[in-house]
Parts: sequence; C-alpha cells; structure tokens
Amino acid sequence: MMEKRVREILSWYASDNPGTLTNLARLLTHGKLAGTGRLVILPVDQGFEHGPARSFAVNPPAYDPSYHFRLAIDAGCNAYAAPLGFLEAGAAEFAGEIPLILKMNNHDVLHDEKDPLSAVTGSVRDALRLGCAAVGFTIYPGSSAAQTMYQQCREMIAEAKANGLAAVVWSYPRGSSISKEGETAIDVVAYAAQIAAQLGAHVIKVKPPTDHIEQPEAKKAIEKANVPRSTLADRVRHVVQSAFDGRRIVIFSGGATKENDETFYEECRGIRDGGGFGSIIGRNSFQRPRDKALALLSTVMKIYSGEMK
Amino acid sequence: MMEKRVREILSWYASDNPGTLTNLARLLTHGKLAGTGRLVILPVDQGFEHGPARSFAVNPPAYDPSYHFRLAIDAGCNAYAAPLGFLEAGAAEFAGEIPLILKMNNHDVLHDEKDPLSAVTGSVRDALRLGCAAVGFTIYPGSSAAQTMYQQCREMIAEAKANGLAAVVWSYPRGSSISKEGETAIDVVAYAAQIAAQLGAHVIKVKPPTDHIEQPEAKKAIEKANVPRSTLADRVRHVVQSAFDGRRIVIFSGGATKENDETFYEECRGIRDGGGFGSIIGRNSFQRPRDKALALLSTVMKIYSGEMK
Amino acid sequence: MMEKRVREILSWYASDNPGTLTNLARLLTHGKLAGTGRLVILPVDQGFEHGPARSFAVNPPAYDPSYHFRLAIDAGCNAYAAPLGFLEAGAAEFAGEIPLILKMNNHDVLHDEKDPLSAVTGSVRDALRLGCAAVGFTIYPGSSAAQTMYQQCREMIAEAKANGLAAVVWSYPRGSSISKEGETAIDVVAYAAQIAAQLGAHVIKVKPPTDHIEQPEAKKAIEKANVPRSTLADRVRHVVQSAFDGRRIVIFSGGATKENDETFYEECRGIRDGGGFGSIIGRNSFQRPRDKALALLSTVMKIYSGEMK
Amino acid sequence: MMEKRVREILSWYASDNPGTLTNLARLLTHGKLAGTGRLVILPVDQGFEHGPARSFAVNPPAYDPSYHFRLAIDAGCNAYAAPLGFLEAGAAEFAGEIPLILKMNNHDVLHDEKDPLSAVTGSVRDALRLGCAAVGFTIYPGSSAAQTMYQQCREMIAEAKANGLAAVVWSYPRGSSISKEGETAIDVVAYAAQIAAQLGAHVIKVKPPTDHIEQPEAKKAIEKANVPRSTLADRVRHVVQSAFDGRRIVIFSGGATKENDETFYEECRGIRDGGGFGSIIGRNSFQRPRDKALALLSTVMKIYSGEMK
Amino acid sequence: MMEKRVREILSWYASDNPGTLTNLARLLTHGKLAGTGRLVILPVDQGFEHGPARSFAVNPPAYDPSYHFRLAIDAGCNAYAAPLGFLEAGAAEFAGEIPLILKMNNHDVLHDEKDPLSAVTGSVRDALRLGCAAVGFTIYPGSSAAQTMYQQCREMIAEAKANGLAAVVWSYPRGSSISKEGETAIDVVAYAAQIAAQLGAHVIKVKPPTDHIEQPEAKKAIEKANVPRSTLADRVRHVVQSAFDGRRIVIFSGGATKENDETFYEECRGIRDGGGFGSIIGRNSFQRPRDKALALLSTVMKIYSGEMK
Repeated sequence: MMEKRVREILSWYASDNPGTLTNLARLLTHGKLAGTGRLVILPVDQGFEHGPARSFAVNPPAYDPSYHFRLAIDAGCNAYAAPLGFLEAGAAEFAGEIPLILKMNNHDVLHDEKDPLSAVTGSVRDALRLGCAAVGFTIYPGSSAAQTMYQQCREMIAEAKANGLAAVVWSYPRGSSISKEGETAIDVVAYAAQIAAQLGAHVIKVKPPTDHIEQPEAKKAIEKANVPRSTLADRVRHVVQSAFDGRRIVIFSGGATKENDETFYEECRGIRDGGGFGSIIGRNSFQRPRDKALALLSTVMKIYSGEMK
Repeated sequence: MMEKRVREILSWYASDNPGTLTNLARLLTHGKLAGTGRLVILPVDQGFEHGPARSFAVNPPAYDPSYHFRLAIDAGCNAYAAPLGFLEAGAAEFAGEIPLILKMNNHDVLHDEKDPLSAVTGSVRDALRLGCAAVGFTIYPGSSAAQTMYQQCREMIAEAKANGLAAVVWSYPRGSSISKEGETAIDVVAYAAQIAAQLGAHVIKVKPPTDHIEQPEAKKAIEKANVPRSTLADRVRHVVQSAFDGRRIVIFSGGATKENDETFYEECRGIRDGGGFGSIIGRNSFQRPRDKALALLSTVMKIYSGEMK
Repeated sequence: MMEKRVREILSWYASDNPGTLTNLARLLTHGKLAGTGRLVILPVDQGFEHGPARSFAVNPPAYDPSYHFRLAIDAGCNAYAAPLGFLEAGAAEFAGEIPLILKMNNHDVLHDEKDPLSAVTGSVRDALRLGCAAVGFTIYPGSSAAQTMYQQCREMIAEAKANGLAAVVWSYPRGSSISKEGETAIDVVAYAAQIAAQLGAHVIKVKPPTDHIEQPEAKKAIEKANVPRSTLADRVRHVVQSAFDGRRIVIFSGGATKENDETFYEECRGIRDGGGFGSIIGRNSFQRPRDKALALLSTVMKIYSGEMK
Repeated sequence: MMEKRVREILSWYASDNPGTLTNLARLLTHGKLAGTGRLVILPVDQGFEHGPARSFAVNPPAYDPSYHFRLAIDAGCNAYAAPLGFLEAGAAEFAGEIPLILKMNNHDVLHDEKDPLSAVTGSVRDALRLGCAAVGFTIYPGSSAAQTMYQQCREMIAEAKANGLAAVVWSYPRGSSISKEGETAIDVVAYAAQIAAQLGAHVIKVKPPTDHIEQPEAKKAIEKANVPRSTLADRVRHVVQSAFDGRRIVIFSGGATKENDETFYEECRGIRDGGGFGSIIGRNSFQRPRDKALALLSTVMKIYSGEMK
Repeated sequence: MMEKRVREILSWYASDNPGTLTNLARLLTHGKLAGTGRLVILPVDQGFEHGPARSFAVNPPAYDPSYHFRLAIDAGCNAYAAPLGFLEAGAAEFAGEIPLILKMNNHDVLHDEKDPLSAVTGSVRDALRLGCAAVGFTIYPGSSAAQTMYQQCREMIAEAKANGLAAVVWSYPRGSSISKEGETAIDVVAYAAQIAAQLGAHVIKVKPPTDHIEQPEAKKAIEKANVPRSTLADRVRHVVQSAFDGRRIVIFSGGATKENDETFYEECRGIRDGGGFGSIIGRNSFQRPRDKALALLSTVMKIYSGEMK
C-alpha cells in the first residue's frame, strides 16, 4: 500500500493525469527515502555545465557515465538526473533500476555571458524513449533571456504532462539585474520558487537561501510581516511557503563541495526542519571516492528520514 | 540490484529502446513474483467481452472498478490489465501502485460473429496519459478478419515501442476456419504464439494447449519429430519453444472459472514446469469473494516462485 | 574497387537515388558470392506462413531466431530475410554482419482462404530502425485480393526508394483463378515476374517454372514464337527475359525440402544456366542440421560462382 | 564474424537502435583499419569552409569531386565526409564503395564573424537518399551562437538516430570568449569533447590538444589532480577520458598541411598511444599529389593498426 | 537522338532523379543553342530588384510581361527567368513555348541594407503550377544574412529535386565583409561558385570575374599555384574549375547595359573560351528596342555556338 504521505503529496497535483501522478509516485517511492515524502536526487550535469576536469578530475572514475548510475542506485537515491548523453550511455544497461530525469537544457562556460540562455539539448520524445520518469529544465530568473527560457520551459512542461511525465525545474536566479549576493537572497530564492511553481513545475530545485534581501520592495514586505529568517530552517520555511504554501515539492541544491561534511549535514537538517522536501546532491557526492560518497548520502538520507537527528 | 534472470530476459529485447526495457522491467520487478522472471497478471476485460452480469453478478463488489485495482495490488500481481474505462476509473487513485496494461481493443458478444474483429478502444496516447507500462492487443488468428487485426496490432506495437512502452498480445485462435477443439489445439496455440512474436510482441498470452492437433500438415510434422505432448508441461514447452525458442515471454490464460482450485493449481504447475512465464488470471480470481481470490492468487504465486511444489 | 558486373547491374536502376543503389550494392557485395552478380539469400518466414512445428520441429535449434542470423552469416549468404519479430530478435546482436531484408507482409494458414491477402506486418520506418538494406513484399497475382496487394506493394516500394532502401518482391501466383499446376506454369511465372518489375521491384523472387502453360492466349503466343521451354534453363531464360529482358534481378525460390540434394543442385544449375541471378533458400537449408545446411549452401554457391559445374 | 573490439565499441551505444548500430559497424568494418576499432576518415569540406583556390589550387585534380571519392576508396579509409554538393557529385557513381558522412552544416569565410554560426546545408533525408552511414555536424563551443548550434545539432542527431543513422560531431571551440591559443587548450578541447558527447554524438572530432590551459578554474582542477599533459599522448588520454571515460569514439583532425610528414606521423602516434580512435585527415592528404597522399595515408593506417611503431 | 554533349552534362548529375534530369535536358535542348551544351537565358527580375522606371522606362514595351516571353521565345533563348508575378502574367499564354525558371527570392532597393537578405517570393508548388523547368534562388555570400539564405536555398533545392525540377543559383557576393571591388574578385567569384555547387545547385550564375584578389589567404594560394588570371578566359576557367572541376553548369551575368556591343561580345568570347557555359542576359537585351535586342542575342548565340569567332 502506498504511504499516506505520498498520497497527500500527489493530491496537490490533482490537475495532472494519472500518468504524471504515476511518475511522481515513482520518484517518491524509490530508494531509501521511499514513502517518506522526502527526496535525495543525484544530478550530474556538471560535465556540460562546468567542463569535465573541473567536475571529474578529483575522482576519475566519475568520468564514466556508468559510475553515476551505479552510485545513485547503490546509494538508494530517489532518482538520477543528467543530460542526454550521460543518460543514453547507461539507460539500457540500468533499465528499470532507478527513476531517471532527463535534463532538457544545458549551458556551458566556454562562452559565459552575463545573461545566460541554456541550449535545449533534449526532448520529451527522448525522455520517453529513454524511460525517464521526469524531465528537468533550468530557468535563470533575472537573466535578460529569462522570457525565452520561461516559454521553452512551459512548452516542455506542457508536452511532458500530456505524455504522462513529471517536470522538475531548476530555478536559479542569475543575470545582469541581480547581484552575486542576490542570487541566494531569501526574497530572490522565494521568488524563483514561485515562478517555477507558476510555470507548472511539479518539483522545484532552488539554492539554500541566505538572509540577504535583494529587492527593496521585498525587504519592506518581509520586514513589515516579520518573516523569520535568522536560521536556515526559517528561510527554507519561507521559500517552501512561497511555493504554493508547501503544496509543491521544493528541494535544495547541495552546491559546491563543502570543506566539512558536518556543515553539509547541518544544512540538510535546516532544510528538513524548515519543511524542505530534500536535496539534490551532485558535487558533494561524486567528487569524492565512492565509499565516502555512499557514506555521506546514507547520512543525509538518515537525516531526512528522521532516523538521525 | 536487478536480478540476473530479469537482465537475461531483457537481453532478448535488445532491439528495443531503454524506455521499453524500463517498462518491461517494471512488469518483471513488481509484486510478489518480482525478480523471478515469472508473472501473474490480473486482467479484467470481461465486462466488455462477456457483459456485466456474466462477469460480476456472482461477486457484486467486482462491478466497481476500484475493486480490481485493489485486488491486483493486494494480491501482489505483476500488473493489472483492463480496457480504457476501467483504467480511467482508478488510474489516478491508485497511481504508482501497480503497473497497468491498457487493453487496446475489445469485442462484445451482443453481436457475436463467427469471424470476430475487435474494435480499437484505446490508444498509445491513452496509455501514456494513464501511466501504463504496456499496451495490450487481442488478435484472433483463424478469423477472416485476422489480417485487419494483425495490421492494427503491428501499428500499435510500433507506436508503443517508439514511446517507450511494452506490448502484450492476446493471441486467441478463433474463427470459421478453426474447430472449437482446434482453438486450444497444441499446433494452433503454438502457431498463435509464433504469430504474436513475429508481430513484435514482448509478452504473449495464449490459452493452455490440449493434445489435440488441428492441422493435418502440423500433425505430420509434430508426429515425425516426436514432439512430446502428453502432459501440459510438455505442451507448454512446445508453445514456449514456438515463441522464439523461449526468448519471448509467454503467459497463459486461466480461462473460465474452474470447479476445483486444485485443478487450477495443477494447471499452473504444468505451465511452470513446461517453462511458461506465468498466468493471467481473471475470472478464477474476481468471480469469487475477495479473501478467496487473495488466497488463490497467493497459492498460484507460490507455485510459480517455487516456494510450493 | 567494385566489380564490373555489380556496376553493370546497378546501371539498370539509374532512376533510383544513390541510397537505394548503395543498398542494392550491399546485397551484391556481401558473402561468398560478393561481386559475382549472383545471390543466395536465406529467408525465414515459414514460422509465420506455415506455423512453427511444420517449419522447425525437424531441426529444433531453428526455433531460435539467432540460429538463422548465424546460419546466414556463416554460410556467406548475401542477405537474410525475415518478418519483424525474427529480425528484432537479432538485429542488435548481429548488427553490421549481414544485409537484412524486412519481410513487410505475411500470411498464415490458420485461415487459409482461396484468394489470400497477406497482412502488412512491418513498415519502412521499421526497416530503417533495424538497419535493413531492403524491404520485401509478397504479392499473389491471381488472387481476387491482388489489387489491394499491388497497391500496398507500390506504396511501400515508393517509400522505400525515397528513404534509400531496395525493394524485393515475392511474386507468387495463387488464387481462385489459377489452377494448382498453373501456379508454376511458365507463362504465369513469367507474367508474375513482369508484374513485380512493373510495380518497381529491384529484386524479384519467383518459383522455378514448369513447362505447363496455363493461359490459352499465352500458349498461342509462346508456341507461335517457338519459345524454348524443354529444360529448366530454357524456362528460366524466358522468365528472366520477361523481367525487362534481364535488366531486373530475378531469383528463384528453393521451395519445399527436396528429397535429394542432387535434385536441388540440378535445379540451381538450371537457374544459373538460364541466366537466373540466384536462389532464395529457406526450408532446404534450415530444415536440416546446421553442418548439412552449410554444406548444401556452400555447394549451391559454388554452382552459382561457376567454381562447380 | 565481427571482431571483438568492434562489438565492444558497439556495446557503448546500447540506447541506439540496430539501424544506428549497423551504420556505426559499417564505419568500423570498412577499409584497411576494418575491425581494429581505429578510424581514418577523409573529410573534404574545405572548398566551402576556406574557398576553392586555398583548398585545391596546390593539387588541381582535387577540384573534381570524383577525385576525393577515389582517394578515400583507394587509400582504404573508413569513410568519406563532405557537404551535400560534393556527395551528390559522386554518390551514384561510387555507390556502395565506401561509407559516406554527410556534413550537415557549413561555414564560409567570405563573412568571417568573430562568433561564427554555420548554415545548415543538408538534412537527414538527404543523407538517406544519398546512402550515407552517418551525418556530421559542426558546433563552435565558445561562440555566442553556440546555443543555436547545439539545438540544431541535437535535433539532427535525434532525427538521425530515429532513422538508423550514426552522428559525427565536429566540436571546434571558437568565438569571442576564447583566445586563439585557447582553441586547442587541453581543458577547452576536453570540454568540447564532453559537450559533443552530452549532445548524443556517436563519433566526436576534435583538434589535437596543446598543454595550454585556458580557463582558470579548469587550471586549478587539472593541476590539483596532477593530470599529466606533457606529451600529446597524455593530453589525448585526458580528452578521451573526458568523452565518457573512453566510451565514445574520439578522433582528431589533421589540421593544416604539415611541413614535414614525420611531424604528422609523430602526432598520429601520440593520438594512438593516448587511446585516440584515429584521425580525420583532409588537407594533409588531398593537398599533395595522389601517390604521395596514398603513401601518407598508408603510413598513418599502419601506425594506427600497430603494424608500424 | 540527344546530343552527346547533353548526355555528358546530364551524367554529372547522376544523384538526381529522372524528373530533374528531364528538366535539365529541357534547358539544354531548347532554342538556338539546343544541344550545344551552351545556354543563353533571359532573366527579368529588375522590376523588383531595381524598380520599374530604372528597368523599363528606356524601352516602354518592356513594362508588359508578355514582351519578355516573346523576346525570349523569338530570340531562341534556352529559358526565361522571372519572379512570380511576371511568370503568372504570361505562363498560360505562352505555355509550352519556352522553359521557364521561377526566381524564388527577390530583393528591392527601397530598403537597401549593407548586408542584404532577399525575400522568398515563390515556392516549388508555384513553379509546378506554372510549368517551370527550374527554380532560381539568389544567395549573397559575404552578407551577414548569408547563413539564412543558404538554409532557405538548400531547402528549396531539396524540394525542387524531390519534385523533379532543376535548381539555378544566382551567387552574388555582397555585404559588409566584402569591398565593392571584391564582389567580382576572381577568388570571391570562384568561392561563390563553389558555395552554390556545394548547396546542390545544377546551374550556377556568377558575375564575370576581374583579376583582383580580395582575400589574403586566397592570394597566397593563387599566386603560389600560378593560377593564370590575365585574360577573362583565364579567370572564367578558374571559376568553372572551382565549380567541381567543370562538372556543374556555370553561366555568367551580362550585368548593366554595356556602352558598346563589341565589349559585350568580347566578354562572351572570354566566357566561351574559358569554358563557361553561357550567359544570362537581361538589361543588355530588354533595355533596347526589340529588333536590336534580337540582333544582339543572335550574335551572342553565334559566338557560343562557335558559328562566329
């Protein structure tokens, strides 16, 4: 029988067809966190986004696409997300072993413009032929190219939904209108989550928010309403609230490799305690030896499941 | 990690894309028989095929489509197969709980012609929006309308494969060229399995064969080659061999309600011992009270898993 | 460098695009007869056409689709032809080892009507995704359903040519208008070859003709012109002449298993001496143990290459 | 029987259909290097890319498109790659003699912008009608027009795969964000290989990398991980590793005509020893007299086959 | 019987279907130069390109579209080329009297940008319904809009070929990257011819080249190879060689009205002696009274046929 929490989460998406609900359920019922309503996803798009050496030289087995399939499966992640090439390189060999998310657009830093526009590098048809449960799309709110990305995103989400797939949106504020500090400002992250939700995303990925507030008007509103923001849990709570009062799944990126694992665990606890739905952990897992990655992911999952404080 | 037997079975379908392999894997890794390479599927198309009273009056809760979803889930079947309406009536509520098979064509007996042609009552798009793992299609080899059904079947299989779904073919010889006895004759059932395999089916459903031989030319060949056919296991072995030397999944229908459960179990043992991949059990399960159905299905699964002799 | 004879044959097809010429060249330059302008093709559609036991019980390893791929490859045939299911079951494993021909329509004998119509069981898209060099299509001139088959055939040939594939037509007179003896009558076989050529076939497969003449008007013409027909070579010469004066590739079916191999070799010599382009040998090869099949095919190829008298 | 190495390489592309595997096999089993897993391809797109006199005046017979077909065939190259016009000018005459690659986009220097965008000058349908085994596409990572090219590239690859063709990507970093030296920097070339692989390329063509590192972040990663880069073999090893740990075919361009053949051979040895899959040699072969070109290509092939040190 | 020279020319286009060859043959076998392999074509697109008064005020009957049909027919031109409107105004009246070429894109000077892009003003369907033998398309290599025009051109050529039409490309270097003198520089004209040929053109129209060399790299190559360029014949020879070593039909525009007819004849002699295939003569014919135009065209044809020195 499916766990009540999963049924509750699915009830938020009652406009979607049973195919999309089935694939959302797949994400929520696979791996060690199956049925908890929490998710830990392994994403590996850094080869495209940052280049191979920056991504994999520190742990050379990770150059091999099979490595990531195995890591995600063995760690008991809910899903594995990657661009077309990485998925094609293992989708047949590992068919049926873990839900897959096709990262549909990608950006590289060989030409790193201030207002980035990712290239569309996959399609819903690709996702179907590769057996994916969901498609993933990145938007850069704050970029002068944001409108183009919103429109591409919306079209892909619409096509995904018509074909019974779920949609994950990476919502990363960035561009000439936003300060570096502003990219993780609480108001900006909350806004990014809202935009993704309004575009129809089922799962929203944002960065953990800081207590900086970027926009003067938002500052006024947040301060007037005394929105708590001193702890990460407080800030996560605001972001989750901003995504339809918690009725959309919001997960948080692990970001660059942390110096100290405890710092990372502390962040996960903050996300958990603030009502976040989980983490998407790339570099912190695949940029270390496999046994250490498995240990870290195991600890993170225990934090999310509540087995660990 | 996926069981070796499942990987072995998937290796027979190397022409298919990872999406189709993923959905085949879903059928093979769900329920109590997950990973054994055996399948027990609950099919409920009798409401359409035979009419509601003939199908459900003996066990009135079965008029409710939810009943069958729950029965299949609680019994630990590998999948639940039904026509469009029955699936639509529960696919959202039970999303993610059991692999679904959309029965794509159906035939009723209000007009029961000698050479039947089923009506196409579903589409691949329906299967995607309902979250199905596979589509199902019935052909009647021996009917004067067989060519039409073969062509419809092939087109649906092609579309299913392009969209990453698996294809199940019900191959039931029937029509003016075949005697009643011939419909389950060993040569005819084996031929029906071969035709379904040649049309590109991943899973083939036939009736348990008798030792009757219908076609004179087949009789000569079978007798000359001394093909054993005295036991059901022998006959199943010939049918499985006829489906690409066992490289296609062949399952057997339970047929009309058996007087005696032991007769039914004996049949399952024969299927198992002859190398059959399992059973598709409708009337023998839903035409009795739920607890008795669960008991029967449990016993059948123990027979297939080898837990029971 | 390509052999002159192959270039000469290709020159007959100058209306075709280079893609189709390339695939015709593949058929003519593969295997032991590569470059001779002669072909020996292994066709295995009998599982569908006659049923599995009649086809394979005499040599059980032949139930396995891999068996035929290996037989065709090891024997050095020019190509292997089969229906969708048989090709799908080996096309990935044996990719690139032998040119494939997708048999696009098929007929079974569970309903064996007097005026047969084969079901379309494959498509040009299937042929492309399976890596085929050609598509194959059967027409039954003389059947009351012939017009339907001619039209289907023509459409498939047109689509094949637009996509750079070659087209092989099995032209087997049959139906209520033709006597049993007439099916192989010299006038009827020659007429069948002409029809296939007129439909745009690149390669035409007919049965070896007898000296019977079926149609009274044809009898008058043949006798008036003193067309020689006493030897098989004579009759083959007339059939080849009837296919655009030898400017279309005409090959001959091996038919049912011969009692005596020498009879079969004698037939091949007749085909060769009459200017036939080769044989398509199914039952005479796969209905005997593999080593004997290899020996027979080797002898046949020596006859066609001229190495053997 | 197909060589083990070829089967091993094909196993990396298990997501692809048998048609695409067949065409990949064609590239790997043609010419003098057939079966070695190494490739030497003749590409002639310089007429379009650099203009006719710069390309052919030094060896006037090379103005004739037939010249290049013959050179590639006689030298025993694995394939011949060219734009539409050059292929159309010989594809019928040389049908079946060598695998062809249709170069799908092209760029000329009459308008030579800093951030180049190639024009799409061919289609998958052209490739099918011309009998090509693969399509080729150029991307310029680092150009401000890169996103457009990635998207065009991905769409063509998707269409090629659906039609059973293989896809070759020329990945040449270039544009206003990259220094001239950076175009062949080890980090940039490795990144370019990764991007092509992520876009779904089967075969990736890059330039031989120098030991320069262009991007500061990559410099840190490469130095921290002590990635060896003092010899060409070292650098090639890093690039090949960056293309899915060697699970994608990476070949290297010969570049402008070398003053000294020994320099060129030394480069080929470096590519071979670093695990590169071969070379794509245009100007160094067709910009010298035919006999000298044949001699050079013969030596290069001996180096790749291991026959020569 | 068709003249050998025409057959020879058609043999260069062996990738094309017989429909396209038929229409090429129509161009080559009509008018006074029929069968010589030379062409004189009347093009009248100046009304669109330069405006009506600039084009026709000097010879008012030329405002009437019928005038040009009659002129081309009476002069014995091989074909008449014009935009949609001009052809529609006479195609019925003169149906069957002269091969027509539909000019598919056009550009006016009311908005005369530095980097021009012509508008697509016709379609292949228009060409078919108007009975055209060929379509014509203008590209401006050197324009920043060149990529767009190449892509449009390629698509139209592909569609024309699929429908059995021939394709004529006007290749006129122009744009911000090229000096005024460079537009007719020998290297640039040769390059423009090469690009058109690579895009799949059957007939290429360029301007007569001067001995100026625009590109430094081309200068090096041309001087190193001692490519003769002192006479127009020399330069035409280089351009024709640049169009697939003379295996594509290259014709030359007459340009603006010459002061002196003898100058014009001299130019034609240069084209002829350099191996050019003929001229496309607009303004020099229709911007003078009809009788003088007929006289000029007659002389030009005599030069091309060799009747006149």
